[in-house]
Order: sequence, then structure tokens, then C-alpha cells
Amino acid sequence: MRWKATLLVFVLVPVVAWPAPASNEVPLKLVRAALERHRAFDLAAHLTDSIGPRLTGTTQAEEAVAWGAETLRSWGLEVRLQRLMVPRWVRGEAEAMLVAPAHQSLVVTALGGSVATPPDGIAGEIVEVSSYDELGDRLRGKIVLYNREMSAEVVAAGRSFDAYSEAVEFRGSGASRAAKHGAVAALVRSVTTRSLRTPHTGGMRYEEGIPQIPAAAVTTEDADLIHRLLARGERVRVHLRLTPQQLPDVESANVIAEIRGRELPDEIVVIGGHIDSWDLGTGAIDNASGIAMTMETMRLIQELGIRPRRTIRAVLFMNEENGLRGAKAYAAAHPPATHFAAVEADAGVGAPQGFFTTLDAAQIARFAPAVEALAPIGANRFLTSPSTGADTSPLTKAGVVGFGVFPDSRFYFDYHHSPADTLDKVDPEHLQQNAAAMAVLTWVLADLPHGW
Amino acid sequence: MRWKATLLVFVLVPVVAWPAPASNEVPLKLVRAALERHRAFDLAAHLTDSIGPRLTGTTQAEEAVAWGAETLRSWGLEVRLQRLMVPRWVRGEAEAMLVAPAHQSLVVTALGGSVATPPDGIAGEIVEVSSYDELGDRLRGKIVLYNREMSAEVVAAGRSFDAYSEAVEFRGSGASRAAKHGAVAALVRSVTTRSLRTPHTGGMRYEEGIPQIPAAAVTTEDADLIHRLLARGERVRVHLRLTPQQLPDVESANVIAEIRGRELPDEIVVIGGHIDSWDLGTGAIDNASGIAMTMETMRLIQELGIRPRRTIRAVLFMNEENGLRGAKAYAAAHPPATHFAAVEADAGVGAPQGFFTTLDAAQIARFAPAVEALAPIGANRFLTSPSTGADTSPLTKAGVVGFGVFPDSRFYFDYHHSPADTLDKVDPEHLQQNAAAMAVLTWVLADLPHGW
Repeated sequence: MRWKATLLVFVLVPVVAWPAPASNEVPLKLVRAALERHRAFDLAAHLTDSIGPRLTGTTQAEEAVAWGAETLRSWGLEVRLQRLMVPRWVRGEAEAMLVAPAHQSLVVTALGGSVATPPDGIAGEIVEVSSYDELGDRLRGKIVLYNREMSAEVVAAGRSFDAYSEAVEFRGSGASRAAKHGAVAALVRSVTTRSLRTPHTGGMRYEEGIPQIPAAAVTTEDADLIHRLLARGERVRVHLRLTPQQLPDVESANVIAEIRGRELPDEIVVIGGHIDSWDLGTGAIDNASGIAMTMETMRLIQELGIRPRRTIRAVLFMNEENGLRGAKAYAAAHPPATHFAAVEADAGVGAPQGFFTTLDAAQIARFAPAVEALAPIGANRFLTSPSTGADTSPLTKAGVVGFGVFPDSRFYFDYHHSPADTLDKVDPEHLQQNAAAMAVLTWVLADLPHGW
Repeated sequence: MRWKATLLVFVLVPVVAWPAPASNEVPLKLVRAALERHRAFDLAAHLTDSIGPRLTGTTQAEEAVAWGAETLRSWGLEVRLQRLMVPRWVRGEAEAMLVAPAHQSLVVTALGGSVATPPDGIAGEIVEVSSYDELGDRLRGKIVLYNREMSAEVVAAGRSFDAYSEAVEFRGSGASRAAKHGAVAALVRSVTTRSLRTPHTGGMRYEEGIPQIPAAAVTTEDADLIHRLLARGERVRVHLRLTPQQLPDVESANVIAEIRGRELPDEIVVIGGHIDSWDLGTGAIDNASGIAMTMETMRLIQELGIRPRRTIRAVLFMNEENGLRGAKAYAAAHPPATHFAAVEADAGVGAPQGFFTTLDAAQIARFAPAVEALAPIGANRFLTSPSTGADTSPLTKAGVVGFGVFPDSRFYFDYHHSPADTLDKVDPEHLQQNAAAMAVLTWVLADLPHGW
């Protein structure tokens, strides 16, 4: 998941409710069925163990699409593929070596979208900065190190996504910002508070008209090492070799599955998450878990044998991590105005807490009682946020009411975009509980007897 | 540090003491001086940040020797080098790929001493075992995976070294044991309880007369992945490529520095640790910290301006990690019988707890009051253990009374032999406190008015 700056505000227990839903029976059934077996976990296990990393444009990403479509179809759902063109970036090799004041290797990984260095690499003196204000002429011919720590205090306070937003800005645009001042390469401190020399990748983009310089993430340990050496007055030189390639775009697809509404079939509750992943780990948390929640929601509701008022549409979005092409293509082909609500699952798989939402406090207060079936699993809290997920952002920006599954995120960035994002980090119970939360919210939205 | 199976027994507060030392004045001075500044930390920082990894036979290992000798000499100590020949193993590259039932990369690192695979690598089906009893004919032509978990419970109970001893047996001898049954390569689960896809290397050795097969450590995540696939009934195939090289032995040295005793100069209290390290991290915990404690002990005692009864001899041992050549050469040239005691620092740098010792409970009870100056920093506990460190083991096996600095080790194996063993993991206060502990013990031993 990629995140923009958000302001999260916890909302207290609702006071004034809409007329309660006719019955809590269906939500309670959904929760019970979700917690009965580890079926969502089995889906995540297939994506990670049996398919593997699913970087956009790879065979594995296409295998995931085919498996997703076939699996949803096998449950009796209407399934189609929305074809789209996607970028194909290949990581290649990454090597970095401190060459002065002493020789030692640094652990780095290319940022997604980075160009390659010359074949023999590039060497330069390091200029360390922790804000864009510090950029300037002294970067000419140098390698910039963006070294701003992610706040462990903010993470511990349960506001990991705020800590992330605050620390991540250099990853996306730091290379071009430094290239404007003549920098020859950019290193960015990995965005995490816990590291075992663990590199964290992520998407970056070049500004048009600015020289494209190679960009890599360094581990927090290596960023700290360079900082210590510079603090001692040393001149620090690094040799960097990256061999990524940007190949021509290839065809891929969003997977779209529907349960048609019985009364208002043209009002869509869209749910989903991204099926692509970064390539260093197997994307178990980001975002096989979100895909598992989405698919399990469809299966649980389909198994009820009753249709909600509105149409539920699941989208397994392609290319969230390095292009958002799936989200853009979906929004271009499906007018936002036809959507009643959007629910995204792409914020990890910690213990369930509830949901981000674009609803304000008053709206939450009226809506929340409809999901009281989630209280026993602790998933009935709502947090107002302007952003509820990247793949549904084209819809929510156009005014569609948005929700995002929001589990405990205190450990999310320990693994995020790193080789450590693997299935062993997923607690099967937590995954089932979050799937239950998504299923209940989805059902309630689709069956709500009134509009917003 | 390498560890053999040990049985650690905490010993309670002593009851019957020897005649108390004439005065506690010197020990208290040593503690105060040790805690005044972060001088030991500065030594560890030089070894790790300014020199880097110090694998035996490398330029950096030699640089460490030269720096150690020069630094000790600059404090007015008598310093000499004991020349010796050491192995020169070069890691090269390590790549592993799961090729069935699906393609995904595995994170591995060669075990120290391993031979290379053929240049294009070697592929084989995985046979997973968790004990030597499970070896047999079914290994023929296969790649064995030794997959025994390190016990998180035993680590949490403060007995990390026991947990390590129990889990590590396959790393040293697993390759030859499997090769006897026709295995073509060996993978060994990394010995740790906490991983962010972190490989942990370590020494291995081949039995004579058995085919030498390549051996690598896999991360716990990758071992778990293979286990899950096998548990589902899949046939798992792995492609492994390792390019290490065993080059001819090269010359290196132990650094030996002395403070001559005023009454019994021929009775030696030898103290030390290893100055070499593995190459993945910078060996900050294992064992720049132990070297810093050793050197700081010498500086603190030298600065007192008074000499102890016996001679204190510090040894910065070379090649503990992959050969123990320094320890063997030292013991061969310095008869054990000339040693009054041996104190080793190679068990990490957590909060101080006290010391391992070969003394039994009754002996500890008599000796412990002599180091009561360490009570305020919590470093006055003693644990009976047959092994107090690898570099002094040739001495203690010959009957020399042994001690080992023993800090809180609960997090030691999170970093041990991995890329994550870097200076940021060292708490400067803890390092100073352990240096204080080593200095006080060393002084008390060297100045003890009686024998054992």
C-alpha cells in the first residue's frame, strides 16, 4: 500500500443512530462463517507460497489474475477481466559500497521505477539531508542521502500511517528534487522503525524535464552509519551499482466479480485491494491479505444464498504499487456516480480495529450501529480519513463514500515493501477476523435501506 | 562467538567468603572511571565504522590487528604480535531459487568454509529433517534442509546460549553427515528466534573422506516456506548457487599486551576476545564489543598507575570465527600451567549480569565478595559453566580457571552472525558497564592475595 498524508481522528461511540437494520441476522451469520475456518488464510497462502511475489508485468502477477478469476468463478460469481496496459519494471541487481573513509558494503535495494547506474556503477561523495530545504548547489556531482527517521513514538501510539506519511516523501520525489541541484544519485533511508539490515523498496517517479538519476533505499543501519561518519567530520564516498530496466508496457488486467443487487442493481458497492505486490518478499501482508479479505467477503455473501439490495462488485486491482494503472482504468471505465460506496483492504492484517472512512463524525454516529455485529471482534470502530486506500482514491476523490479495513498497524511497517513481508507474519485468526469485518461492512452497505 | 553445549547454573548469593581484599578502593575507582565516558564504545565504533567487517585473512582484519597493537602501545603497554597462519575463505555470491512447485527467490548465505556449487549452481529436491536420526538413503541426490527451530521460550528464559547450542549442531557438521547419505547440498535454518528475512552464517567443517557438498544458511522465513509446501504434499525443488573460495592460508597475528605483575610476574591472568568477525555485518556485538571491553580493561588498569601482584596479559585473538587458529597458537606457545586465570569477552553486550565461570558453587561463594564493587551495576553474579569462551577453551580445558563476561543475552541471537550485527545495536552504557565488570574482575584476579 502507498499512502498519502492523512489525518486520522478516532470517533467515539455513536449516539444517534439511523433506524436499525431490519435484523442483525445476516451480519452475525457472516461473522460466524468467517471465523469457522481459515479459508481467507488459505487464499493468502496460495498467492504467496504457491505463486510468490507478484510484481506488475511478471508471470506471477498474471498467474495471480488467472487464479483470482477462476477461483471467484468457481464460487458461482459473475467474473470478467478488465484489460489494461501496465508498466514492466525489472529490479536487476543492487550493490553499494562505502569506499571512503573505509571499505564496507552497504545494504541497498533499487526504488521501483529507478533507472540504472552506468554498468560499472557510479561513485560520489555523500551529502546528507533530512528535508528538501537543505537541498542546494552543494549537491552538484554528489550522491544525496535523504535521512529522516520514521517516528517510533508515533508508531507506538497507533498512528503508523501518519509516521509513514511524514517519513516517506523523499522516496517518491527525492531523486528529481536532488537532480535539479545536480545530484548524480539518490539514497533514501528505508521507512521503518525496526530493522535487521532490512531494505524497504517503494515506488518513485521522475519529474519531466529533469535528469533521471538512479535511486535506492538504504537500510536504517547503513543510513545511521553514514550519519555517524559525517558527524565525525569524515568525507564519505559511496559506490552504487543498480541494474534495473524499464521494459515496454505489457497487457494485464483487473479481475472484476459481481453479486447483482436485487433492488438497486445499478448502485454499486465496490470492494477490493491490489493483487500485485513488490518483489522482495511475497507481499503476504501487502497485499495478499487484502485480496484474501476481498475474495472471502464475496464467498461468504455468495454462500448466504440471498442477494443484497445493491450490487456488490469486487475488484482485484492490478499495479497499485508502481503505477496505479488498475485503479485509474477502473475509474475511467466505471463512472464514480454509479457507486454507492467503496471499501478497500490494503492496510495490513494486524488485530482488527475497524475502518477508515470518509464519513464525518456525525455520519459515523448514525451509521455505526448497523455493524454492531463486529463489536465482539473489536472491528466496529471508525476513523475519519480523507484517504481510505489508493485503489479506490479515484472514486473517493470524486465523492464516493469510502471505507478502508483498518487493523492494528503498529507492526505493519516492520515488513512493508521489504523481503520480510512473508506469510509467516500473517496471523490466520486476525486475517479471518478482518475478512469478517469486511464482509459485514460490505453486506450492510449493499443492503442499507436508505442512502447517505 | 561459537558455542558448544553448556549447562548454565545460576549460583545464589555467597555465604562463606575468603578474607575480604585489603580494600575495595581500586575496584570502585575502576568502575567510576569506566562509566565516566564512552571510551569503550569509541573503540568498538572504530573497529566497526572505520575498519568494517574483519573476516580472517582480509585487509580489514590486518588493519584491526595493527590498530589494536598501536592503540595499546599508545597507552604505555608492552605489546607484541604473535604471528600465525590463518585460513582465507572468501564468501562470493549466494543465490537460491525455489523452482518447484513455483518460482520464487530464497534468501541464503554460504556457511563459512563451504565449497562452491558448480558455476551454474546445483538443483535438487528438498528433504527436510530436524534431527540426524532422520538421515538415510532417501537423501541420495537430494538437498537436505535441516530445519530445527531455536526455542523462543528458552531464549525468553534468559538461556539463549542453551537454545543456541541445541539448535546449532547442524550448522557445523550437517553437510558431511548428509553427504554420507548421498545428499548433494545442505541448507540449514538460520539460528535465531527473530528474523526479518535475515540470514545468519557461521562456521562449518567437512569430515575427512566424505564428499564435500556446498552448505548455506536459509532464513527462518524460507525454511518455514519450504516446510509448509512439503506439509501440503508438494515436491519442493531448489536451485542453489554459491561461489565461495578457500584460498591458501595467509599470515596474521594475535595482539598481546601486558601489564607486568609486581610480585608474581610469572603468574598470568589472561584476558581477551576475538578481533576477527564474520563478514555480513560489522561484528559490532560479535566481537568488537568484547575487544573494546578487553582494551578498555587494560587502559583502566594502566591508568591506575599501580601494578597488581600478577601479570595481566590481554590477547586480541585472531580467527575465532572460522578456525580458532589464534587460540590454538596462543595455547601452544604459552603453557596453560603459567596461567592463574582466563577471562574472555565474547557473549555480547546486553545489560551486565556477571560472569560465566568454571568455578563450582562453593568456590564462587568464596570468591564473589571480592567483586562486590560490581553489585551497583548488576554485574556480580556468577554462573558455573564448563565453557567460558572459545578462545580461552584450550586453557580452561587444561585446567585454568575460566571466566566469561556474561551480559543479558536475550537479544544476542537476533543479530549474531547476520548482516544486522552493526554498531547501532550496541548500547554505549551497557558496553561501559561490561568493560567495568571485566576490569574489576581482572584486577581482583591479578591482585588476589592467595591462590585457588
